[in-house]
Amino acid sequence: MLSPILEFFSSDPKDKKLKKAVEHIIGQKPSNIMLYRLAFMHSSVSKETVAKGYKESNERLEFLGDSVLGMITAEYLFKKFPFKDEGFLTEIRSRMVSRESLNGVARKIGLDKLVEYDGNRRTVLARTSMYGDALEALIGAIYLDKGFQFTRKFIVKSILTQHFDIDTVVSNNPNFKSLVIEWAQREGKQIRFDISEEGAKHNKEFTATIYVDDDSFAVGQGYSKKKAEQTAAMKACEKLEIS
Amino acid sequence: MLSPILEFFSSDPKDKKLKKAVEHIIGQKPSNIMLYRLAFMHSSVSKETVAKGYKESNERLEFLGDSVLGMITAEYLFKKFPFKDEGFLTEIRSRMVSRESLNGVARKIGLDKLVEYDGNRRTVLARTSMYGDALEALIGAIYLDKGFQFTRKFIVKSILTQHFDIDTVVSNNPNFKSLVIEWAQREGKQIRFDISEEGAKHNKEFTATIYVDDDSFAVGQGYSKKKAEQTAAMKACEKLEIS
Repeated sequence: MLSPILEFFSSDPKDKKLKKAVEHIIGQKPSNIMLYRLAFMHSSVSKETVAKGYKESNERLEFLGDSVLGMITAEYLFKKFPFKDEGFLTEIRSRMVSRESLNGVARKIGLDKLVEYDGNRRTVLARTSMYGDALEALIGAIYLDKGFQFTRKFIVKSILTQHFDIDTVVSNNPNFKSLVIEWAQREGKQIRFDISEEGAKHNKEFTATIYVDDDSFAVGQGYSKKKAEQTAAMKACEKLEIS
Repeated sequence: MLSPILEFFSSDPKDKKLKKAVEHIIGQKPSNIMLYRLAFMHSSVSKETVAKGYKESNERLEFLGDSVLGMITAEYLFKKFPFKDEGFLTEIRSRMVSRESLNGVARKIGLDKLVEYDGNRRTVLARTSMYGDALEALIGAIYLDKGFQFTRKFIVKSILTQHFDIDTVVSNNPNFKSLVIEWAQREGKQIRFDISEEGAKHNKEFTATIYVDDDSFAVGQGYSKKKAEQTAAMKACEKLEIS
């Protein structure tokens, strides 16, 4: 096996192919191909490294890329919707960077052909978020390789505007309150929405509390009863991992 | 009331004071003081804007700043700990940017003297994360005013390295398993940790599942039994909002 430094200068035909594929996706020649190779290395094929107990795979890059994608998406929505509150921005962002949605984008840009994984575990992995995770790892690799401004342009141009119709994302509004109520019925739990209000006549703020079997389960606030309830219900759905 | 454009050029003595305070904190004269004024405007003093239903406060900037802080902290830890896995990085980051921790930093850099809020609600607000939220909003304002590189330096220099002793953060390791078990005892619930394993002799991966009253509650994976359990327990603590 080559040492990392020699490996870096190798002209392995596999690397040439990867370089071409990355160039096609990001629109520029990669400078450090090892970053991208790592980005496409699923943990099922990870190898023990020099550091005992640590195995190299794309999971660290995924951690980094997830935060870069979250930040650029936050800025994009912040500027696109100057009069929408942070509850709206949070919700739209979470729809855009959801596991499902990122898996779809990753396949569209061809990452399913690049990810290295243990073929024996294919059926299990197919159900997971392997490709979406690789997309996040790719973003981490681009950030380390090309810097912030390049990555920002890549995310806005090649992910956010190319693969999302923002009006569709916005109008696809799940009714969280119904989802919570359905959950409670399914699980045979008592559920109750309580509303309290505070503030002067034209400046009222509402607080909705959802009680499950008489225990406070989620709280939401807003400038209307409906919004407070929706916020509380959204938090409950997050806790319950339903949506 | 002045129009926004006139307001921008006003030499309001309150603005002068704010300019000085911001310059002291960020180490450079602010270019657009309105951003910082907004960053310190708690929702308890928010005003209706031209857009119906939307009230201006620091909450949007907090949304943006939270994502910027999360990303820079991710990068900082990614580079500081090249052989630690993403579970470790996620955990350390969440300790650093926790509500409690940010509230403390915000007070140390003097934001408690700058935040505008409704004094009548002081006792309620004092218990919340008002100052930590304002710190995130300040980061959002700096990002919009000064760009990415400046904000990155500010976060690394004036927050991460100045206010955290990283070794202390790391060693302050809560035992999530005990926390979950204590919770179950307190609530009178049955709790069970199940372990399954997969893979060849030297490449085993473990999956721990925590059952609460015979329902699967949280799942964690790792290359040792202990790690899988700790990951599952950490997720359970997140769900239960205990730590």
